[in-house]
Amino acid sequence: MTRADQMKLFMEPRSIAAIGVSRATGPGTFNLLENLLGYGFPGRLYPVNPNAGEILGVKTYPRVAALPEVTDLALISLPRHLVSATVRDCVEKGIKAIVIITQGFADADDAEGKRLQREIVDIVRGTGTRILGPNTFGVANARLNMSTSYIRISMEPVAVGTISQTGGTFIGLNDIRLAGKAIDVGDACDITVVDCLEYFEQDDQTKVVVIHTEGMADAREFLRVVRRVALKKPVLALKTGRTPQSARAVQSHTGALTGSDRLWDVALKEAGVVRVGDIEELADAMRAFLTLRPPAGAGIGLTTYTGGFGIIAADACGKYGMELVEFAEPTLKGLRALSPDWMGVGNPFDIWPGVSIVGLPRTEVERTGLRYVLADPSVHAAMMVIGAYDAHMGEEHLPMIREAAQTHPEKPFVYFAYGPHFEEVRRTLESTGTTLAFPSPERAARALMHLRARAHFLARQTDPGNA
Amino acid sequence: MTRADQMKLFMEPRSIAAIGVSRATGPGTFNLLENLLGYGFPGRLYPVNPNAGEILGVKTYPRVAALPEVTDLALISLPRHLVSATVRDCVEKGIKAIVIITQGFADADDAEGKRLQREIVDIVRGTGTRILGPNTFGVANARLNMSTSYIRISMEPVAVGTISQTGGTFIGLNDIRLAGKAIDVGDACDITVVDCLEYFEQDDQTKVVVIHTEGMADAREFLRVVRRVALKKPVLALKTGRTPQSARAVQSHTGALTGSDRLWDVALKEAGVVRVGDIEELADAMRAFLTLRPPAGAGIGLTTYTGGFGIIAADACGKYGMELVEFAEPTLKGLRALSPDWMGVGNPFDIWPGVSIVGLPRTEVERTGLRYVLADPSVHAAMMVIGAYDAHMGEEHLPMIREAAQTHPEKPFVYFAYGPHFEEVRRTLESTGTTLAFPSPERAARALMHLRARAHFLARQTDPGNA
Repeated sequence: MTRADQMKLFMEPRSIAAIGVSRATGPGTFNLLENLLGYGFPGRLYPVNPNAGEILGVKTYPRVAALPEVTDLALISLPRHLVSATVRDCVEKGIKAIVIITQGFADADDAEGKRLQREIVDIVRGTGTRILGPNTFGVANARLNMSTSYIRISMEPVAVGTISQTGGTFIGLNDIRLAGKAIDVGDACDITVVDCLEYFEQDDQTKVVVIHTEGMADAREFLRVVRRVALKKPVLALKTGRTPQSARAVQSHTGALTGSDRLWDVALKEAGVVRVGDIEELADAMRAFLTLRPPAGAGIGLTTYTGGFGIIAADACGKYGMELVEFAEPTLKGLRALSPDWMGVGNPFDIWPGVSIVGLPRTEVERTGLRYVLADPSVHAAMMVIGAYDAHMGEEHLPMIREAAQTHPEKPFVYFAYGPHFEEVRRTLESTGTTLAFPSPERAARALMHLRARAHFLARQTDPGNA
Repeated sequence: MTRADQMKLFMEPRSIAAIGVSRATGPGTFNLLENLLGYGFPGRLYPVNPNAGEILGVKTYPRVAALPEVTDLALISLPRHLVSATVRDCVEKGIKAIVIITQGFADADDAEGKRLQREIVDIVRGTGTRILGPNTFGVANARLNMSTSYIRISMEPVAVGTISQTGGTFIGLNDIRLAGKAIDVGDACDITVVDCLEYFEQDDQTKVVVIHTEGMADAREFLRVVRRVALKKPVLALKTGRTPQSARAVQSHTGALTGSDRLWDVALKEAGVVRVGDIEELADAMRAFLTLRPPAGAGIGLTTYTGGFGIIAADACGKYGMELVEFAEPTLKGLRALSPDWMGVGNPFDIWPGVSIVGLPRTEVERTGLRYVLADPSVHAAMMVIGAYDAHMGEEHLPMIREAAQTHPEKPFVYFAYGPHFEEVRRTLESTGTTLAFPSPERAARALMHLRARAHFLARQTDPGNA
C-alpha cells in the first residue's frame, strides 16, 4: 500500500469505529457520533462503549474485538492512560488507520505524556497500522459529509486540501472553508505533513493545498516533497511560531521544533510554496488561486471611481510589486475620448470626470475604459476601484466582467470596493466565478502578487534562465 | 471671525445656495438638491438656475444677486469657465463660504486650469469669503442631515471628523462611516487641512480626527497645529502617494506635493499622530479609539479556544510590539485549577483542555480564566481567541465582557474570532460598547498597538523623561 493509498483509509473511509463515544448528547457534549450522523456520513458507524447498548439509535459494541468488521478507520477519544491498550486492540483487530483525538501526549508538560507517545508509536511500528495525532481533530472530507472533529463544523466541497497543526482550521475562516478536505496532524507522532501532501498530490478533488504548520522534525524531506507537489498545484503555507514568545507556546501545543523563521522563508520560496503571513492573507490567496489565472507579468492597469482612491490603490500596488504600467498610445487615445479635454489621462484611469463632466453614462465609461486597459499589451492584470454606495450596483458590472473573462482570460481582473454595501456588491461581482472583490487594495494587490509569483516559479522550471 | 468660526459656516450652515443645480433628477443624475432634500437637511435651500422656476418643488432663483438672503454657504457646480464670475457674484452678495465642486483646476493637465485656480483665489483675497475646493465633494455633517456631495451617501452621527483629499471617504469604508462630519479639501486653493483641524479641535461632537492627505504646501504649519490637536484628541492620518508611481498620479488628482514618505513618518509620529498604512488599518484604529481606552503598557494576556490559533495570535502580538507577559504565580495557580494536571499552563491560556478533559462548562473556564488574566498586574490588555462556529455563541460572552469592563476599565479587551459566523458573533460582542472583535489577530494587535502608542505619547507630555 502506498502512503497515498494508506491516507485514503483516513480521508475516504467506508466504515468508522468510534471508540470512547459518550452517551451524553446535545449541545455542549461535543459528541463525535452525533456530529457524524448530523453531517449525513454515508458509511457504516460503530460506536464502542462498554456501558451502552445503543447511542442515538446506533448499536454500540463493548470493545474493539467485538466489532462485526475490520473498519477502515478507528477514532480514539478516551482518557490518555487508556489509549495505548486501545491502539493495541485496533492493531490486533487489523485496523490500519487510527485517529487519536485525546490530548496530553507530546503536547503535555509532563514526562508521562512523552512516554505515552513513545509507547503508542512502538505499538504500531512494523504493523502497517498508522496513527494520526494524538491531540487532533482528525480529518474532514466535505464530499463525504464526514468530519471526526468533536466540534460540529461547516463544510463545503471547495477544491481545497488543508494540512494543519490545529483543529481550529476545520472551523474555517471568514467567507472561506478550509475543509473541503482537511487533516489535523496534531502531535504528528506517526503521520506527518509529508504523508498528507502525498495524498493531496494525487487527489483530483484538490486544486489548492494549504499547510498550517508550527514546525517539523524532518524539514528536508518536507521540502523535497512539497516542491514536487508545488509543480502540480498551488501550495500555500502559513508557518507559525515565528517569534521567540510564540515559539515557546508551540512547545506546550504540539512540541514541534519551530526553527529559524528566516530559513523557512527562503526554503519555502525556493520550493515554490506561497508563504502567507497571516490568516487573512491565506484566505485571500486561496480565493485567488481557486478563481483567477496567474498573470504573465507584473504590469497592472487601474480604473477608479475617484482619483483619491485610485492613488490609494496605486500605493498598494507599489507595496506588493505590481507595476502601474504607462499605457500605450492607442490605450490613451481611447481613454481620452471618455474624458474631458483638460484631463491628464493615465494609469490609474479616473472614470468619474467622463460621467460628471462629459456626461457619459457611468457603465459606458467603465466598460469601454476597461476594454482599452485590458487590451493594452503591457497590462497583465487589472484592478477596478469602485465605491459601493448602492447595494445593487454590482449588477451593472456583470456584462463587463463576462466580457473581460472572454476577451482576456489570461489577465486576472479584480475589484477593490469600499463603502457600506461592500458585502452585497462583492457577492454579485463574484457570482460570475471569474473575478474577486476585496475590501482593501492591499489585499487585492497582495493576492495578485501571489498569483504572479506562482507564474514566475512555473516559468523558471521550463526555462531555468528565467530566474 | 476665527478660522474655526468661519468653518462653522461650512459645517453647520443654516442656509445653502446651490448654484448650477440641474433640472434633471432621479438615478444617475447626481442632483445635489435632491440629495439634500433626501437626507432631510433642516436649513433653507435656494437652488440657482436661470432656466427653471422650481426644481423638486423648491423655488429657484435666476442668479445669486436675486437670492432673498445672504446664505451661510454657496455650492458651485458649473462648468469651470463659469466659476470665476459666480465666485464674484457670491462675494458681492456677501456670502462668506463657498464650496466649488467643479473639477478642472489645479487637478487639470492644462495651463488653463491652473490659471482659473489663481483667478478664484485672487477674487476672494481680502474679502473675508473663503473657498473649499475646487474639485471637492464639499462637506458632510450627519448630525445636520447634510452632505454637499453629488453622490448620495450614508451618514451616521459617529464622533469622527474626517479631513480628506477625496470625496471617496464620504462613502465610508466597510462597517464604518467617515462622515460623522467630513470635509473634502480637494485642490485646497484656500481652505487647507489646517483650517479643518482647527474646526475639529474645538468641536465637541468630534472625539477622533481622521486625515487623508496626498501632501500639502505648508507641512510645517500643519505639523504645528496637528500636534496641538493630538494633545486633545486622537488624530489618525492616512498619507497616500507613497510610491513614485502613485506620487505621479497625485499630480493629476489634486496637484499636491507628496514629499518624502520617510520624512512624513517621522514628522507625524513626533506630532503624536497615529499614522496608518491603509484603509483597513484606518477603520480598525478608528473603531479602537472610539471604543477602548489606551493601555498603560504593552503587556498582553491571551486566552484561546485552540492552541494553534493561540500561537497565530501570539505571532501577531509579536509583530505589533504587544508583549506576551509571563503570568504571575497567583494567575498561574488560578489557571491550573481550570486545566488538566499534565497541562503546561502559560500565556496564551488554552481553555479547551479544561472543557474537553476536565469537563468544566466552557463559559466557566472562559470567564474564570479571563478574570485571572485581567487581574495579573503585568497584563495591560487582553485578547480572547474564539472560533465562531455558532451564530449565537456571542451571547454567552456578554456577562464576561461586562465584568471585564467593570473590574478593569483601564485594560482594553478585544476578541480575535475566526469562522463562518464571525459577523453575527462580532455584532453580539460589540453590542456591549466596550469591546471589539477582529477577524484576524494581526488587526486586533495592530489596533492595540495604536492605542498603546497614544498612551505613550500622552505620558511623554506630562513626563518628558518617559521617552
